[in-house]
Amino acid sequence: MSKAELPKHEAATDPPTAGLDRIALLRPLTPEQRAAVARQCRWRRFSADEQLIDHWGDTRDVAFVVEGRVRVLSHSAGGREISFSDIDAGEPVGEMSALDGRPRSASVVALADGALVAFLPARPFQELVTGHPELAQAMLLRLCDKLRGATDRIMELSTLGANNRVHAELLRLAKRGKRQGIVAIIAPIPVHSDIAARVSTTRETVARVLSDLTRDGMLERRPDALVVRDLPRLEMLVEDVRGAV
Amino acid sequence: MSKAELPKHEAATDPPTAGLDRIALLRPLTPEQRAAVARQCRWRRFSADEQLIDHWGDTRDVAFVVEGRVRVLSHSAGGREISFSDIDAGEPVGEMSALDGRPRSASVVALADGALVAFLPARPFQELVTGHPELAQAMLLRLCDKLRGATDRIMELSTLGANNRVHAELLRLAKRGKRQGIVAIIAPIPVHSDIAARVSTTRETVARVLSDLTRDGMLERRPDALVVRDLPRLEMLVEDVRGAV
Repeated sequence: MSKAELPKHEAATDPPTAGLDRIALLRPLTPEQRAAVARQCRWRRFSADEQLIDHWGDTRDVAFVVEGRVRVLSHSAGGREISFSDIDAGEPVGEMSALDGRPRSASVVALADGALVAFLPARPFQELVTGHPELAQAMLLRLCDKLRGATDRIMELSTLGANNRVHAELLRLAKRGKRQGIVAIIAPIPVHSDIAARVSTTRETVARVLSDLTRDGMLERRPDALVVRDLPRLEMLVEDVRGAV
Repeated sequence: MSKAELPKHEAATDPPTAGLDRIALLRPLTPEQRAAVARQCRWRRFSADEQLIDHWGDTRDVAFVVEGRVRVLSHSAGGREISFSDIDAGEPVGEMSALDGRPRSASVVALADGALVAFLPARPFQELVTGHPELAQAMLLRLCDKLRGATDRIMELSTLGANNRVHAELLRLAKRGKRQGIVAIIAPIPVHSDIAARVSTTRETVARVLSDLTRDGMLERRPDALVVRDLPRLEMLVEDVRGAV
């Protein structure tokens, strides 16, 4: 990596060697080993919506998200976004192509300005995984987790209508939110198009379903949060229809 | 493993130690190591439609399919089958729960009488994977392959209607079949309910789509095979609508 590739303010405040300390996957390595990995990386900052991995490109490197947050997504030919997962700082993304050498399965874009990403070529990444059983084990668990998520989504797409998939996504968000008895607070307010991309429907369907729930008193829109008034009722709504098709 | 668990004819004709020689994943092991693994396995034969892994059971072992073929599937609450993949002799199944200790993501049933399966408990399987980097590597590639398949299916379910998913499945079958110029021969004739379970639709939809294609001259039903008369035309049919939603 040439210093020239790194913006000046970066070189001063964000020495690449320290950056990789934030990557959970690389924790089994010694600081010296991580420093050696950091030197093999190409470092770059991305602005919001900028693409770090191109679905149709021929790159195979793994990307470590050191700062910021990125989204794995694809588009239909009609331009509708299908999103797969959001990757937080500290996680790798694009590891499949780095491991198996096959084309990218999706694109990856930064979610906000300033995402700092370290790209490690496929070969040294494979050597890392092969040389450190704890690292291979962590990658296996990560892929299992992703495959379980994909299997759940296939089941939802196969057995639930779009309305109920929005309910199911709302339930997932509510369960991750703050709880006060049967009330759950989702903050910040999720963007309709994000929900739509996660459950493979249109923004209009999401807007309609949320407004129906609001009219029924199950949902309340506050300036800074979406409030589920009755979590058990939402749970029943999802469970009742799950797989009834 | 007690000898009593193995049917008598088994003990004579199918010594478990030799059985595991057919499992590709275990090829990096020496014959002695494979024999040691075989002794840790519980061996059983299954009849057609018999369940070897129960989605709702609390088992965590990996199952090596030594003879026969099995299907990974789930059911909607309404009883419709959603199938994920067919696993051939020589492959493992149920490896996710064995690796991550979490519940089963689906059920697994035998596709015909006489499937011979060796069950290895999670702990020794994890030790195998941790102790043999080639084995960990093979598992990583296997999980990548499954995750890619799941991602493709999510895209199809998100962007194609049921009719076009049947076209896409027919195209996959045709590409695996025998080719004669622009003609592709799919043999044996696929069962409508199998296609339906793979693309998450009903048997009736599959029957209707295939009969439409037959009327249009793109498909011909022979006693022993389904013949795609014009593979490029089918390909165009799939590509034209893929993602147009």
